[in-house]
Amino acid sequence: MMRIRSTALALLLALAATTTALPGAYAQAPRPDWKFSTDQAFDPASIPAYQGRHDAVYARIDADLDAHLAHLQRWLRQRSVSAQDDGIREMAELVAGDLRDLGFQEVALVETPGHPGVFGHYDAGAERTLVVYMMYDVQPVEENWRIEDPFAGELVEHELGTVLMARGATNQKGPERAFLNAVDAIIQEHGSLPVNLYVIAEGEEELGSPNFGAVIEPYLDRLRAADGAFFPMNLQRPDGDVSLNLGVKGIIYFELESKGGEWGGPAKAEVHGSLKALVDSPPLRLVQAIASMTTPDGNTILVPGYYDAVRAPSEEEQRLINGLALHADDAAMQEAFGVSQWIGGMHGREAIIRNLFVPTLNINGIWSGYTGEGMKTILPHVATAKIDSRLPPGLEPEAAHRMIRTHLDAQGFEDVQIRPMSGYPAAATSVDAPLVQAAIGVFNKYGAMPRVSPWLAGSAPFYQFTRTLELPFVFGGLGHGSGAHGPDEYMLITPASGVRAAGLADIEKSYVDLLYALSRSGSD
Amino acid sequence: MMRIRSTALALLLALAATTTALPGAYAQAPRPDWKFSTDQAFDPASIPAYQGRHDAVYARIDADLDAHLAHLQRWLRQRSVSAQDDGIREMAELVAGDLRDLGFQEVALVETPGHPGVFGHYDAGAERTLVVYMMYDVQPVEENWRIEDPFAGELVEHELGTVLMARGATNQKGPERAFLNAVDAIIQEHGSLPVNLYVIAEGEEELGSPNFGAVIEPYLDRLRAADGAFFPMNLQRPDGDVSLNLGVKGIIYFELESKGGEWGGPAKAEVHGSLKALVDSPPLRLVQAIASMTTPDGNTILVPGYYDAVRAPSEEEQRLINGLALHADDAAMQEAFGVSQWIGGMHGREAIIRNLFVPTLNINGIWSGYTGEGMKTILPHVATAKIDSRLPPGLEPEAAHRMIRTHLDAQGFEDVQIRPMSGYPAAATSVDAPLVQAAIGVFNKYGAMPRVSPWLAGSAPFYQFTRTLELPFVFGGLGHGSGAHGPDEYMLITPASGVRAAGLADIEKSYVDLLYALSRSGSD
Repeated sequence: MMRIRSTALALLLALAATTTALPGAYAQAPRPDWKFSTDQAFDPASIPAYQGRHDAVYARIDADLDAHLAHLQRWLRQRSVSAQDDGIREMAELVAGDLRDLGFQEVALVETPGHPGVFGHYDAGAERTLVVYMMYDVQPVEENWRIEDPFAGELVEHELGTVLMARGATNQKGPERAFLNAVDAIIQEHGSLPVNLYVIAEGEEELGSPNFGAVIEPYLDRLRAADGAFFPMNLQRPDGDVSLNLGVKGIIYFELESKGGEWGGPAKAEVHGSLKALVDSPPLRLVQAIASMTTPDGNTILVPGYYDAVRAPSEEEQRLINGLALHADDAAMQEAFGVSQWIGGMHGREAIIRNLFVPTLNINGIWSGYTGEGMKTILPHVATAKIDSRLPPGLEPEAAHRMIRTHLDAQGFEDVQIRPMSGYPAAATSVDAPLVQAAIGVFNKYGAMPRVSPWLAGSAPFYQFTRTLELPFVFGGLGHGSGAHGPDEYMLITPASGVRAAGLADIEKSYVDLLYALSRSGSD
Repeated sequence: MMRIRSTALALLLALAATTTALPGAYAQAPRPDWKFSTDQAFDPASIPAYQGRHDAVYARIDADLDAHLAHLQRWLRQRSVSAQDDGIREMAELVAGDLRDLGFQEVALVETPGHPGVFGHYDAGAERTLVVYMMYDVQPVEENWRIEDPFAGELVEHELGTVLMARGATNQKGPERAFLNAVDAIIQEHGSLPVNLYVIAEGEEELGSPNFGAVIEPYLDRLRAADGAFFPMNLQRPDGDVSLNLGVKGIIYFELESKGGEWGGPAKAEVHGSLKALVDSPPLRLVQAIASMTTPDGNTILVPGYYDAVRAPSEEEQRLINGLALHADDAAMQEAFGVSQWIGGMHGREAIIRNLFVPTLNINGIWSGYTGEGMKTILPHVATAKIDSRLPPGLEPEAAHRMIRTHLDAQGFEDVQIRPMSGYPAAATSVDAPLVQAAIGVFNKYGAMPRVSPWLAGSAPFYQFTRTLELPFVFGGLGHGSGAHGPDEYMLITPASGVRAAGLADIEKSYVDLLYALSRSGSD
């Protein structure tokens, strides 16, 4: 069966296609009400545009662009559907082979309980070292693509220009192989790289990265000695602005279930609905248990201690938020998502703060009993909900689970079970990190205004970089793509006139600049 | 698509197969706490066994038993699946033809917006008149029957004896045609009947009787002049005891729905779950709305006024309840339903009272968002629940709907919609009604101890008899059957040794006795 799962990455890409700033805010009782100590706004233009020129490399990129595009197509034509174990090992070997061809001195497939990872080390003898994270797997494909074969990797004319339309085009093979094209061009011209590289690729991102820890485990000490980690990504809008989110929220995802048993209710199967007078109802218990966790509007969490763990916005984060608020366009976001208003009509800075700093409690799904047409009169024996909570920095997944369990027990819902499905903490990188400063400088060079957010409201297990490896982590880059996880996924290769997102050549050149900028950052 | 719906009748039959008394009780805050004014228990043995002897008719039944059985088989072999419009008109015409063959002077198909009804009048020139209700439709059939063809109408050996196994065998063609066999035998021997008969048959019982009002409408004045209404039914347990429920609860059945719109939430489609920080959640709203209607244990309704409308048990009902309590076997009921205990551990008379006199609020089904394997992180745009409430006498469906709407509005849930799907009031007949006294007398003659309940906790639109036609109404009779709505539905024809439920011959003889008893009741 196809596993349907929305990764944080898909959200990142979806958001990049619409707007950059995710607003948020707070209003009600037990939610924290932080006072900002500064009204200063972070101005990305205050960081000088990257000044380095690498004309020989740029020329090599322009000359080899057809071959570079062919590399992207070669990656896209190799199926690698992790949920269906379709082409996975072939793709892992393809990645490893490409690293060897580029001159990586050390390349290895890393076996895990799941799909293999790929490790590569390019020792340039340089002062600085960058870890490059890659995912080589893709989502399954649906029926309704406008092209015949989502694995053909063909160019398609699109209103934004010429695009590569294929599964994995933007999520994530396109930008990843574009990055390696940039590496190739530098090595071709200069025989080496300005920084040492570690490539860590996994084949289970679309499954929630269950074995990523096992992929990096053999290399922990070496990776921790690096200067930062980077995940190539198309996060540019058609108007040229680029998202730079310096982290992600954490998450707990669990099933909450009430099932008949010793406490009451039907234990084995549904009974007739008229028996409700005598028999406890699992779905009513589930509904009551969930209801006990929020205010009646569903928007304030009543689990004791839940908000206390969240740390207040630092002054740096306040400046970033103030900067985001200058460009906030709540109406455009709301239209894109088909929402008439944010909660309680909030907007602007208030909405940004709520979005980034306030934990959520969300029902992803709930089901029990008869859900078909017409009437069936039953008292179901089991009721289940899929619930997630997004965790800002400070609120740890273990603590969140524990507080929810404690709350349910205190409210008398000992009979309601929690089945944890996923949980990891938030990740955040300082805007002052050399890698971040280098990225902003490169974006400024290309006239791509960075919209810098402390983190994204979505979740991804990027704590593996910021916490396990203790590295600054940047996910992003120039270039535009859309359709991750859906039909007609594409990456823009040649922008149409008036479209200000970078095409393939500029994307690759910006990666060249980033590597050089990182090699010099903090040492100029 | 097959309409799945559990009719009250199916419950009646299921309960008859297990035990007779449905217990019930009360404990918490706003639920009424009636004090009984009497400890006297109704004793069915206090009503004399029917003394009449109709040996010529009995002998005719014995002589014609093979032919009588063949009539049942003929009815069962005529498909009449109302949900699939399969054989419906043919079955209506078969019923009408049989009535004509029996000598009914007036027989008509009654067209409705749905399946036709059948009206028949046998004018015996008698003092008393009985309305006989019949349903000629059946449920669809499933795959997993132990016989090849559920419409073959064949005899099958069963642990209880020889049974007719077929769709409709006990629900409801078997007992109905058995009743007509009794009528036939009387007419054969005596040229006429001791009472006048109206037969009203409908073909949409399994659809919730949506057009039964239209079937009786042309005959209202004539039907109202009758002395009672009767629905032939196998309600005897294998040990010989027989259920006699003198009514049913009413019901409202509705969908409760929260959908994104002007008030907030995603209006058109799900959005990413991380947006919960900014976006109202329809499933959380639905959960909160439902939760507002009950205490946290799900067992006390908090809708203002809901309990006030229910009338207290009359002295007659108290005596019936006291009588039921003498034979209550909660443990056996609980085992049959797979329930470890009734709510709060109640039992005996307390449970009977709760079951019969306290309205319920029950979730038949609830669904929203992603309900498959694994994780999908979405904020759904719509959430729906199917809810029913069982209404004891006094609580009218319109009032129940109005109180729930008023409550939701008062709690701020104006955005949560109610979609009514069904609603009708309770029905109850006094144990003192001549028809009831006649039935008990007949049961006593056959040694079938009647377990007499004021009504059943299940629902059926029997108000059409008690309220629209203002008639005493009895549904029941000797004989045993099981499997209504499920596979292997059967009616016991020839009981095995030790089984004390009546076989076909005694069932028919008891119907003969019932007609004679009614003709004399109140006039002896």
